[in-house]
Amino acid sequence: MSYTELKQHIQRIADVNYAAATLAWDQETYMPQEAAEFKAGQLSTLSGISHELFTSSHTQRLIQQAKENKALSQEEQKNTLLIEEDFARQKKYSTEFVENMSKAISASFNAWQQARKESDFTIFAPYLEKLIELKKQECDILGYEAHPYNALLNLHEKKATVADLDELFADVRKELVPFVKKIQEAPQVNNHFFHQHFDKDAQWKFGIELLQQMGFDFNKGRQDVSSHPFTTSFSPNDVRVTTRINENDFAEMIWSCIHEGGHALYEQGLPAKQYGTPLGEAISLGIHESQSRLWENNVGRSLPYWKRHITLAKKYFPEQLKNTSALDFYKGANQVASSLIRTNADELTYHFHVMIRYEIEKQIFEGKLKVNELPDYWNTKYKEYLSIEVPNQAQGILQDVHWSHGSFGYFPTYSLGSFYAAQFFAQAQKENPSLLQEIEEGNTASLLKWLREKIHQHGKYYTAQELCIKITGEKLNFAHFMAYARKKFGTIYDLK
Amino acid sequence: MSYTELKQHIQRIADVNYAAATLAWDQETYMPQEAAEFKAGQLSTLSGISHELFTSSHTQRLIQQAKENKALSQEEQKNTLLIEEDFARQKKYSTEFVENMSKAISASFNAWQQARKESDFTIFAPYLEKLIELKKQECDILGYEAHPYNALLNLHEKKATVADLDELFADVRKELVPFVKKIQEAPQVNNHFFHQHFDKDAQWKFGIELLQQMGFDFNKGRQDVSSHPFTTSFSPNDVRVTTRINENDFAEMIWSCIHEGGHALYEQGLPAKQYGTPLGEAISLGIHESQSRLWENNVGRSLPYWKRHITLAKKYFPEQLKNTSALDFYKGANQVASSLIRTNADELTYHFHVMIRYEIEKQIFEGKLKVNELPDYWNTKYKEYLSIEVPNQAQGILQDVHWSHGSFGYFPTYSLGSFYAAQFFAQAQKENPSLLQEIEEGNTASLLKWLREKIHQHGKYYTAQELCIKITGEKLNFAHFMAYARKKFGTIYDLK
Repeated sequence: MSYTELKQHIQRIADVNYAAATLAWDQETYMPQEAAEFKAGQLSTLSGISHELFTSSHTQRLIQQAKENKALSQEEQKNTLLIEEDFARQKKYSTEFVENMSKAISASFNAWQQARKESDFTIFAPYLEKLIELKKQECDILGYEAHPYNALLNLHEKKATVADLDELFADVRKELVPFVKKIQEAPQVNNHFFHQHFDKDAQWKFGIELLQQMGFDFNKGRQDVSSHPFTTSFSPNDVRVTTRINENDFAEMIWSCIHEGGHALYEQGLPAKQYGTPLGEAISLGIHESQSRLWENNVGRSLPYWKRHITLAKKYFPEQLKNTSALDFYKGANQVASSLIRTNADELTYHFHVMIRYEIEKQIFEGKLKVNELPDYWNTKYKEYLSIEVPNQAQGILQDVHWSHGSFGYFPTYSLGSFYAAQFFAQAQKENPSLLQEIEEGNTASLLKWLREKIHQHGKYYTAQELCIKITGEKLNFAHFMAYARKKFGTIYDLK
Repeated sequence: MSYTELKQHIQRIADVNYAAATLAWDQETYMPQEAAEFKAGQLSTLSGISHELFTSSHTQRLIQQAKENKALSQEEQKNTLLIEEDFARQKKYSTEFVENMSKAISASFNAWQQARKESDFTIFAPYLEKLIELKKQECDILGYEAHPYNALLNLHEKKATVADLDELFADVRKELVPFVKKIQEAPQVNNHFFHQHFDKDAQWKFGIELLQQMGFDFNKGRQDVSSHPFTTSFSPNDVRVTTRINENDFAEMIWSCIHEGGHALYEQGLPAKQYGTPLGEAISLGIHESQSRLWENNVGRSLPYWKRHITLAKKYFPEQLKNTSALDFYKGANQVASSLIRTNADELTYHFHVMIRYEIEKQIFEGKLKVNELPDYWNTKYKEYLSIEVPNQAQGILQDVHWSHGSFGYFPTYSLGSFYAAQFFAQAQKENPSLLQEIEEGNTASLLKWLREKIHQHGKYYTAQELCIKITGEKLNFAHFMAYARKKFGTIYDLK
C-alpha cells in the first residue's frame, strides 16, 4: 500500500515531466517563430512544479513509509532506493534555481539558434557565460569529489569520473589516433555517390522503411523533422524521433535515422508498467548512446546490412545508385576522413570531436578557459587532432545545441556509447554466431530481442557498469572498440 | 506589488493550462495510436494540478491583498474581480465531485465512441444518464436563478438565460423557419462543381493562402491536419488551427479553414501583456463563435470575397473551375438545404439544429425528457424543423461529441455567435461604407483592425452583452441576422 502510494506519486510527477517533454518536442518541430517566450515560461513553470512536487515533504514521507514496508519485492525495494537517491539529489536544488536555470536555457537556446544562423559566436557568448555561471553553482550545489566537472558528468552518467575519462581518452590518443593516421595514408574509398540529388520525399519514405525494419513501432511513436535530429519520449508508448534531410547528401538522413531509431527502440522497450519510475527509465546517456551506436554503426554500417538493404535503396533511387554495389555502398558508408561537423563524422574520427569537447568542458569548469577564448581554442584543437581549418563559427564552436541546453558533461557519453556498443555487439555475436547472417537476411528481430532482454527491460535496475559486467563479464574495455575498428577498417582500407 | 504577485500566480497556473492544451492538440494531430492512455493520465494530472493551485488558500490570500490595494488601475481592479469570480466558482466544487465527474466523462466518452460506431444509442444511454445526474448536481453546486439550465449556460456564456434564449429561438421559429420554407420552394442553386476531385496538396496550399490573406500571422501560429477541425492556443503568440481535407468536396476545407481562421484571429488579437489572466482571454464561447462566423459567413461566403478569390481558386484548380464564375461560386457556397449533420449545415438551417439541441437540453434539466426518450424526440424534431428522416442514430442523436464530454449549455453559443456576427458586421459596414468594396479588393485589414479595437484587445473586460451594447448601441438583436439573411438569400434565390 505505502509503495503503491509512492509509485503513484512519482508517476504523477512523471506526467508533468513528460508534459514538459511534449512542449520541448513541439519547440523543435512545429513551434511558430514568435512563440518562444511564452513557451519558455511554460517549460519553466512545469519544471518548477515538478521540482516542488518531487522535493516535497510528502515525497519524503512516502519514501520513508515504503522503506519501512518489509513486504516489498526486490524490484520495489530497488525502485524505492533509486527514488530516494534522486530525491536526495533534487532536494539540493532550490525551486528558484531550477526556474532560473530553465529560463536561462530557453533564452540561451534562442540566442544559439540566432548565433548559428549568423555564424556569430558573440551573439551566443553572454548567454553561454550566464549558463556556465549557473552550472558552476550547480557543481557546488550537488557537491563532488576530486573535480567539479564530475558533478555534471554524473548527471548524465552515474559514477563517471574525470579520472576514468582521462584514462579512456588517453587510450584513444594512444591507439585510435595512430590507427586513423594509418588509414589516412592509405588510398581513400569512394563515397561520391552519396553526393547526388536525392529527393526529399523519397528519402523520407526510405527512412521510414529502415525504421520499420529495425522494429520501431509506429503505433507507439512517430518521426518528424527538426534541424537537429533527436529522440524524446512521452511514455514507452509514445516515442518521437526526428530527422533532417539533405537532398545533396544521402548519408545524412540514413544514419541519423538509424541512430535515432536505436535510441527509440530502447525507449519503446522500457517496461510500461514501470512508467515514470526509475525502473521504467533508461540507465544513463552512455547506455542510451550504446543502443543508437550499435544500430547505427555495428549494424547499420556493416557489410551484411547493406548486402540486404542496397536493394531497397535502389528501389527508391535507381538512377543515382545504378553503378553502386553493396560493397561500394558499405565502403562509402565507412569513409574515414577528418570533417568539421561531429554529427557527420565517421565512426573513428568522431571520437576526436568528443575528446576536444571533453577537454574544453573540463577546462571551463577548472576555470582555465574563458568563454571568449573558446572559438580560438576550438579552432586550434581541430587543427591539431583533425588537421582541419574551421572556416566559420557556425561550423565550428556553434555547431551543437547541447551547451545552449545547459548540457555540460554530456558529450563524453557519446564516446562511452560507442565503446559500450562495440563491447555489447561482440558479446551478442559470441552468444549468437549467426547474427551477421541474420542481419544479411534482413532479420534483426533476434538482436532486438537480445537487447530487450539484456538491457531495455531492466530500466535503471543496474548501473551502466553493473550491466556491462552482467552482460559481458567485464567492465567497459576500450579494447573491444579497437578490435572492432582494426578488423573492419583494416579490411576496408587494406591495411597491413 | 500585491497585484503583480497575483498576476504572476495566475499566469503560472495558465502555463499549466496551456501545457495541457499543447498535449490535447498533439492528441488530435500527431499522437500515435497506442499513446492514448498515458496521455490521458498526463492531461488528468495537469488539470488536477491546475485546479489545486487555483483553489488554494494562497490564491485566496493574493486576491484579498490585491483587493485591499488602493493604487490599482481600473484594468487591474477588473482583472482582480474577474479572478475572484472564477475562484469563487471553482471553490464550490469538492475534490470528490471533480473526480467523479472526470471519471464519468472518461467512461461516457468511450461509450459514446462505441455507440456512434455501432449506431446504437442504448450503449451510450446509461453513461449519459449518470452524467446528466452529475450535471444536475452541478447546477445545485453552482446555484442558479429561475432555471437550473442557466447554471450550465453560464459556464460557457456568462449571464445567458433560458428566458433570453427562449425569446431568441421564438424569433427563429417565427422568422427564420418560414423564410427557409420560401427558399426551399424556389429553384435550387447549383453547387455540383464542389464535388469533383480536388488534390489534397493544392487544397492545403490554397487554404494557407486564405489564412494569410485574412491576416493570420504564421509567425504566431500554424495549421495542421486533424479529423475534426479546431482552434487552440498556447499563448497569443502561438495559435494553432487545424483543418481537414476532403478531396471530393472542396467546400469542406475552404469554410472550415476560414472559420478556424476567424477563431484564431481573435486569439492572436488578445493582449499578450495580459497572458493567462481574464483580460487576456476570450469573453465567451458566443463571442468566440461570432469571430469565426463573421469571417466564415459574412466575409467568406460573400459575393465581394469571391469576386476577389475566384482567381486564386482557379490558379490552383483551373480545370475543375474553368466554367465557374465568381457568382456561380458564391451561389454554390450558399446553397440552403436541410441536412442531417449540424457541422455540414448551411448558415440558415444550421440554427434549426441548434434549436433542437437547446430544446432537448432545457427539457432534460427541467426533468421533462428522459434519456430513453431522446432518440425518438430527436427524430420527431428533425422531421418537424428540417423535414428530414433520420436514417440511424449515428447520424442523429449520436452525431456530436459534446454531451459525452459533459458539455451541456454549449450548443446555444453556436447560434449566439452567428447572430452576434451579423450584428457586428452590420455595424462595421455602417462605420465603414467601403467595407464590401475593400473585401472585393482583397483588403480585409481594416476589418481586422476594427475587430481588434472593438473586441479582441479587451479580453474579458466586458461581458458579451456589455460589449455588444458598447459596439452597436443595443443588445443582441436577432433582426440584424434576419435582415442579413433576407437580403443575401432573397437575392440568391430570387425571392419576391
